[in-house]
Amino acid sequence: MCAMSGEITIDLSALARNYKTLDSLSVSTCETACSIKANAYGLGVKQCASALYKAGARSFFVATIEEGLALRKDLPEDTSIYTLNGLSPDNGDIDLYRNHNIIPVLGSLDEIAQLSESKTIPVALHFDTGMNRFGLRTDDARLMCEDTSILRNLEVCLVISHFVSSEEVDNLENMKQLAQFSKIAKRMKQLCPKARFSLSDSGGLFLGKDYHFDLVRLGVSLYGGHPSDSMKDNPMEPCISLNAPVLQIKQAYKGEGTGYNATYHFEEDTHLAIISVGYADGLMRTLSNSGSFYWKGYALPIRGRISMDLVVCDLVNVPENEYPVRGDKLEIIGPHQSIDDLAKATGTISYEILTSLGGRYKRVYKEK
Amino acid sequence: MCAMSGEITIDLSALARNYKTLDSLSVSTCETACSIKANAYGLGVKQCASALYKAGARSFFVATIEEGLALRKDLPEDTSIYTLNGLSPDNGDIDLYRNHNIIPVLGSLDEIAQLSESKTIPVALHFDTGMNRFGLRTDDARLMCEDTSILRNLEVCLVISHFVSSEEVDNLENMKQLAQFSKIAKRMKQLCPKARFSLSDSGGLFLGKDYHFDLVRLGVSLYGGHPSDSMKDNPMEPCISLNAPVLQIKQAYKGEGTGYNATYHFEEDTHLAIISVGYADGLMRTLSNSGSFYWKGYALPIRGRISMDLVVCDLVNVPENEYPVRGDKLEIIGPHQSIDDLAKATGTISYEILTSLGGRYKRVYKEK
Repeated sequence: MCAMSGEITIDLSALARNYKTLDSLSVSTCETACSIKANAYGLGVKQCASALYKAGARSFFVATIEEGLALRKDLPEDTSIYTLNGLSPDNGDIDLYRNHNIIPVLGSLDEIAQLSESKTIPVALHFDTGMNRFGLRTDDARLMCEDTSILRNLEVCLVISHFVSSEEVDNLENMKQLAQFSKIAKRMKQLCPKARFSLSDSGGLFLGKDYHFDLVRLGVSLYGGHPSDSMKDNPMEPCISLNAPVLQIKQAYKGEGTGYNATYHFEEDTHLAIISVGYADGLMRTLSNSGSFYWKGYALPIRGRISMDLVVCDLVNVPENEYPVRGDKLEIIGPHQSIDDLAKATGTISYEILTSLGGRYKRVYKEK
Repeated sequence: MCAMSGEITIDLSALARNYKTLDSLSVSTCETACSIKANAYGLGVKQCASALYKAGARSFFVATIEEGLALRKDLPEDTSIYTLNGLSPDNGDIDLYRNHNIIPVLGSLDEIAQLSESKTIPVALHFDTGMNRFGLRTDDARLMCEDTSILRNLEVCLVISHFVSSEEVDNLENMKQLAQFSKIAKRMKQLCPKARFSLSDSGGLFLGKDYHFDLVRLGVSLYGGHPSDSMKDNPMEPCISLNAPVLQIKQAYKGEGTGYNATYHFEEDTHLAIISVGYADGLMRTLSNSGSFYWKGYALPIRGRISMDLVVCDLVNVPENEYPVRGDKLEIIGPHQSIDDLAKATGTISYEILTSLGGRYKRVYKEK
């Protein structure tokens, strides 16, 4: 059957190479863990987890217990799975963590209290060093030292925090968070001698070895996103390409509008390529009248509003004898447009481009 | 198990009532068809198609042949399924349309030529009366009259066009498109005596009976979206509610920032609710520092950037003795915030809110 939807190709070998490249940037005693929440940033958690495991990864971070239980089926027992959004408030669920070997990352004294009444399971603790998001406050580390009963029955295997702006190498907040976390680590080492420590995400890895501690947790860089403004060029390999088919080549005339509410009017007669893809596929409406698709290296500017299932591209830059024909596939993400380029044209970040990739695309996994 | 992801409740009875309400607005000879492309605007095509069929719908529009084939399994044979994005360019696929009783909506002379070489299957024709998107140009209707061989072997059962701005009742473009389409209809009636005619979407239905022709194609209004600025209040029933659980209630202090890149700083000490939902669930990053979630009718403003799996809400408006606790579910879409309200806060339209609803939500279908 000839597909009328777009196609994503996911290069699992590139994913594995990115893992190895990133792993080589920290000392061998620092573990390189993978963030594969949100369906591995939209790329398919089953396939990505398996490829990352083969590349050597043994620790994996997801958001929720639901994601953890699904992932556990795909990973061997010699792996650690952490749920970043904490512990389910239902005491009955504690057996799920235990029986499926899933480690909740606790972010509140409430969760700690809930668990300390129960049979011991391994847990991680998340201290908030500046995000004001999920996590214990730094003061809570002092509290725990003063009242050691708080952590009774808890087997803390990992202590983490998370950066506010780690992709900005010159942001002073990074150093402040490092100082805060170092202080917390000092306290917690006394209370939990077996615990390891983790501060850095993809950006943090590029801030230098002081930031690495025992484990780094990598997400967007694995999937090919640019991790840090410390480098002009992205050191990561792209892992995906995205293409969508041309439905029609048609003439448009000077003065005519295009798309809903006619937000674009043609200044000259031109030809259009009508593409079978739209915001229902995760190409956000903020990409309207911004950015381009590519054909044979030529940029085809998007004209008018992105529709639910259709995009209109202008062939103004393409010589007429090289026009695509009906059924040809245009590049949306690929050699001429990275996920970061597309994010910029959309007014967002590569992470949101990835997690928005829609369910209608055919997904093809390349292993080599 | 206690869910740590959000939950969407889809009210199939409200969907059915919306269908009946909308159906009553056109004369009985005008059929009310349903647009259920993009997984029924994200709400679940299988369940919605079945509920709409029970409510009396017999004609359904999807975007692609892939969607058509999937839908055919869920609908009885006395239904018509149209693929708005046209005919697959692969001649081998023509048997798929025939064998599965799927009607391609042709938008180009290329498709017509492809099909006129083949065995007859029923088709629809889409004339572009102003969108400059997928569709035949109005001139093509004249061409077809001059050269009747163009439509040889074609069994045209429906002729459609699509509005640019039908939700704007005073937009003059609506009348221009009506005039264009009426001219096309006159020509095509001679060539295809069996064809029916369709111009209106949800907005068009509210433009008056002149705009209805033989079939109206409704989408967003079925799902509860406000269809037309001709009415201040939305006449449709809401079909969905969306809630997500609180992970933590925490203190924040004056001067502290929150979220990635600290785009918000607190002007006073306050308490925060950390919610297990994020842009990976389709709450777009443009909702950052904009809009609110609701608890017992109180608005909880969103502070800082939406994260992939987390949102930070301010409890500033909630009396301390009514604070939610860990595990409580906040309203994202519901009695206090419609899909149109959420769209406005996000800087988009309700359609994109619906089609972006993520895969992690638990989906609950209510039949009564």
